[in-house]
Amino acid sequence: MTALDNIQTNNEPRIRRFKKSIKKVCSKKVIERKLPLIQWLPKYSVGALIQDIIAGITVGLTAIPQGIANALIAGLSPEYGLNAGLLGGFVYVIFGSVKDITVGPTAIIAAMISQYVDYSPDFAVLATFLAGLVEFLMGAFNFGFLVEFISMPVISGFSTAAALQIAASQFKSLFGLQGSSGNYFAQSIVYFFENVKTARLWDPVLGFGTIFGIMLLKCIGQGCSNTGGILQKTRWYLSLSRNAVVVVIGIIIAFVIKQITDEEPLILVGAINRGLPIPGLPPFSTTVGNDTYSFTDMLGVFGPKSFIIPLVSTLEAVAIAKAFSNGLQVDSNQEMIALGLCNIASSCVNSMPITGSFTKTALNNASGVRTTAGGIFNCLLVILSLTTLTTTFYYIPKASLAGLVISAMFAMVDYKIFGKLWRHSKRELCVLVTTLGVCLGVGLEYGIVTGVLFDALIVLYGKARPTVDFYVLKIATADLIIVPLNYTMSYCASEQIRKTILRAARTVATDSYIVIDGTNLENIDLTVASNLMSVAGDVEKRTCPVLFLNFDESIKYLCVDIKPQLRSKFVSTTNVSDTVDVYLKCA
Amino acid sequence: MTALDNIQTNNEPRIRRFKKSIKKVCSKKVIERKLPLIQWLPKYSVGALIQDIIAGITVGLTAIPQGIANALIAGLSPEYGLNAGLLGGFVYVIFGSVKDITVGPTAIIAAMISQYVDYSPDFAVLATFLAGLVEFLMGAFNFGFLVEFISMPVISGFSTAAALQIAASQFKSLFGLQGSSGNYFAQSIVYFFENVKTARLWDPVLGFGTIFGIMLLKCIGQGCSNTGGILQKTRWYLSLSRNAVVVVIGIIIAFVIKQITDEEPLILVGAINRGLPIPGLPPFSTTVGNDTYSFTDMLGVFGPKSFIIPLVSTLEAVAIAKAFSNGLQVDSNQEMIALGLCNIASSCVNSMPITGSFTKTALNNASGVRTTAGGIFNCLLVILSLTTLTTTFYYIPKASLAGLVISAMFAMVDYKIFGKLWRHSKRELCVLVTTLGVCLGVGLEYGIVTGVLFDALIVLYGKARPTVDFYVLKIATADLIIVPLNYTMSYCASEQIRKTILRAARTVATDSYIVIDGTNLENIDLTVASNLMSVAGDVEKRTCPVLFLNFDESIKYLCVDIKPQLRSKFVSTTNVSDTVDVYLKCA
Repeated sequence: MTALDNIQTNNEPRIRRFKKSIKKVCSKKVIERKLPLIQWLPKYSVGALIQDIIAGITVGLTAIPQGIANALIAGLSPEYGLNAGLLGGFVYVIFGSVKDITVGPTAIIAAMISQYVDYSPDFAVLATFLAGLVEFLMGAFNFGFLVEFISMPVISGFSTAAALQIAASQFKSLFGLQGSSGNYFAQSIVYFFENVKTARLWDPVLGFGTIFGIMLLKCIGQGCSNTGGILQKTRWYLSLSRNAVVVVIGIIIAFVIKQITDEEPLILVGAINRGLPIPGLPPFSTTVGNDTYSFTDMLGVFGPKSFIIPLVSTLEAVAIAKAFSNGLQVDSNQEMIALGLCNIASSCVNSMPITGSFTKTALNNASGVRTTAGGIFNCLLVILSLTTLTTTFYYIPKASLAGLVISAMFAMVDYKIFGKLWRHSKRELCVLVTTLGVCLGVGLEYGIVTGVLFDALIVLYGKARPTVDFYVLKIATADLIIVPLNYTMSYCASEQIRKTILRAARTVATDSYIVIDGTNLENIDLTVASNLMSVAGDVEKRTCPVLFLNFDESIKYLCVDIKPQLRSKFVSTTNVSDTVDVYLKCA
Repeated sequence: MTALDNIQTNNEPRIRRFKKSIKKVCSKKVIERKLPLIQWLPKYSVGALIQDIIAGITVGLTAIPQGIANALIAGLSPEYGLNAGLLGGFVYVIFGSVKDITVGPTAIIAAMISQYVDYSPDFAVLATFLAGLVEFLMGAFNFGFLVEFISMPVISGFSTAAALQIAASQFKSLFGLQGSSGNYFAQSIVYFFENVKTARLWDPVLGFGTIFGIMLLKCIGQGCSNTGGILQKTRWYLSLSRNAVVVVIGIIIAFVIKQITDEEPLILVGAINRGLPIPGLPPFSTTVGNDTYSFTDMLGVFGPKSFIIPLVSTLEAVAIAKAFSNGLQVDSNQEMIALGLCNIASSCVNSMPITGSFTKTALNNASGVRTTAGGIFNCLLVILSLTTLTTTFYYIPKASLAGLVISAMFAMVDYKIFGKLWRHSKRELCVLVTTLGVCLGVGLEYGIVTGVLFDALIVLYGKARPTVDFYVLKIATADLIIVPLNYTMSYCASEQIRKTILRAARTVATDSYIVIDGTNLENIDLTVASNLMSVAGDVEKRTCPVLFLNFDESIKYLCVDIKPQLRSKFVSTTNVSDTVDVYLKCA
């Protein structure tokens, strides 16, 4: 009976613990965190609805031309960019936690997938699915902290390089050139100069006109708000929807020329399939020319970069979330889950990858959005355009879109950080410049990895060169050469410690003891412990006795396990100068 | 004239400084460090010469069969392994700093280059040159510290995996199998079971006999030394040269069988080109089948791994140098320079990469070597064998070499570390097991990179999660919520700091101040500073004033540069409770 009793008493708390953890997982607070929708939906008002509708439509007016432009950056046909606006908003309403964030295709991610699109557009859709899966898993398993290892200089170098690369890749459309637009900045520039002889006349005229128009409309709206008079309100709204305005003007110009002269002096976006895409699984295999790529072949094409795209995508979203969180806590894991589900859903409707978009989020905020529901109206506008406006989109001049994209890039370059780092930290400037250089010269994904590793190496180097030194304490009977070890010592510091002890040993006179003072030592690892024991053994053999003072029991246990013959050298005393006496008494 | 004066007074110290640095570079001490030869050569004696000759020949007896065996591990013909013994010893005499170190091909490096040899043996020679170049440059630019970032668990996991992989790759020769031997452990094992039906009879018999013979000869020598009687001396020498003994026995068996039966029941090493290689530049281009590989194509084949081979090679050499330095300081940069030059020289005589070899170095030490000159006699023996013994080498049975290699691998596996880490640090055990697993399942180079990154992530995670907390100090007029920041805070800690401040802000009552106490803060970087200013701005807007106490001038300067409107919030006072009073007085 006792055995049974035991089992029961052992099991009861386990069941209770299980129930507790179930309760914890299902608690209202957790559910609210995982489904932010149920926090705000009960309080949702008509006023909020109207504001969300206005914001959603304003954002949609930018999202449609930007979606087409981003698809063209990736080298995809425009549908992939428009499809990207179909489901993301709906999914984000349920799982997203920051009201201003608008998901959609971004120029950076478009630039990063362009090299795979050269194989087949199916790679772009699979990238959407993979990005979604990785983001979801990272969020679900609390790997959101990974973005904390990307420092500001790296982010800044990366986004400046991305802006330059995206702008450079648009030169092809801006000048109406033939040939490829290149996969990274240096290549784009080389291709531009190789093909510049094929430049056309009217495309650059319209392109630069678009850039000028956007700058003008931006200036018009300055100082205006939607609370002023009718003129102020019009200027404000015109400025907010400037992206749509310039594209509409481009469409009208192209359309009118076509009607009058039956010619197309501008390169146009061209035919877009009308109607909504048929939902289906993402393409887990594809055909390129005569080769069939299985799922694993496709994964092989992505290689380790299939991890970098989701990371950058998360980084964009988390950075934007922080910028618009207004000092509220951002749950980056929840954002990753939301983003992951948005991408997984989108990959079923032939979409390119999506993430939080800075321009659209800022526009959403400026338009006074109240909840994430704004995204729904943005999506509805995309659906409307896909079903009714595709013939209109035929006339969008590619140069207009190029002008639109290049204008957006001005804001992405952070000029100020260079001065700040020059004044305060040349080392961080070095990280920034390295990241920027590798991004521009080799590719964005290589640049960000280089930057992260560079930063990590700096931190590691700091850990590898702790302040370790020694001092001499003369007592009546002997000289004590004391080497204090502090805090936690990691493997990379072991060489520094070894060198210090050897340096201390070189100062030894007769009747000396080397005392390794571990009073303030919190922890060491195997590498440090082994090195310590090895150098202590060497010094004992060649010069003088080595004593270990006030080592923590667990550290002592590790050291003695490595070199049992030094067991007697571990001494504990509150007074450093007593070390030798205590040692001799025990020995 | 004043301008000229200025230039002169500015220039003079510059010239003096330049002269000083020239003097520093050319000082006797530096030259002695860079050319250790001139330290010991003047004191060289006949006694030392005799000891070096004995040691050199003993090592040579092992180096010759091991060189052939290592060439076979890499999938090369035996010459490449023998050529590796030609120049290394001579160069190391001039530049090497540790008397016991013997350079030569090692099994680990052989295993790492085997995948490139599948293209063409020229890749092995180019690998030698590249390894030499990278090692030399790393040494010359003081990058020797890089090996400090490889912790003991990673080294242990890597070398255990290397031993297992090398042993597994020898199963083919041990059993006389057909087919490939595989490029990494898992593959070798799969290939072994696929081809095990092709196993021959006499090869495994001789192979296991060789292993048994080596174990026996090792036991024979235990407890003996070269100071005892003639029997002791013979046993000691027989045991030291056991590698040569078993191979000679193998040769005799194969030769006798051939003479008597005119059959070759054992797979033999076969024809080796007689004579010394003609020195020339390493192959900077090569032909594989019908394809010509230019230098850049060849570099492309190596990829980033062209950096890992030199690193591992250096690691082996530095680890061995430390083990045999007897408590003297090891200059790892000098070791890298020496090793680099050895490899560059060797690459001109069709050699595979070389580095410090543990077995040969231990043997050298046991044979009582006195200076690095021992290496010369080892080289002379290799030259002799290449010019006269190639017909003898024809009869070396591959199974004998396989037995030799497998025996050497037993010593490379560090069993004890598993128990130590289990008892003391499960986290480090995790690093070890991960490194081991990736090395075995994917490849040695991937495993070591994974291990290094895993370790780095653990250190970074520690830096990302510093102990940051807050406490409340009630003074007469208000509540002070104090957040102390200590030591140096790096970018990865910024999120932790931000979270703590937001958590502190949630406890705010009326009349509260949040005080960020920087009294013990040594330094922060741009990421932390920006995050601090951004969260402080948000908290100021939403809840209560934020004050910065006792920030170092340079940190304050950085913070104010980021957010000038918070300038007035920086307060200095020795007494924390005076913070608000001081702030109000200034404001």
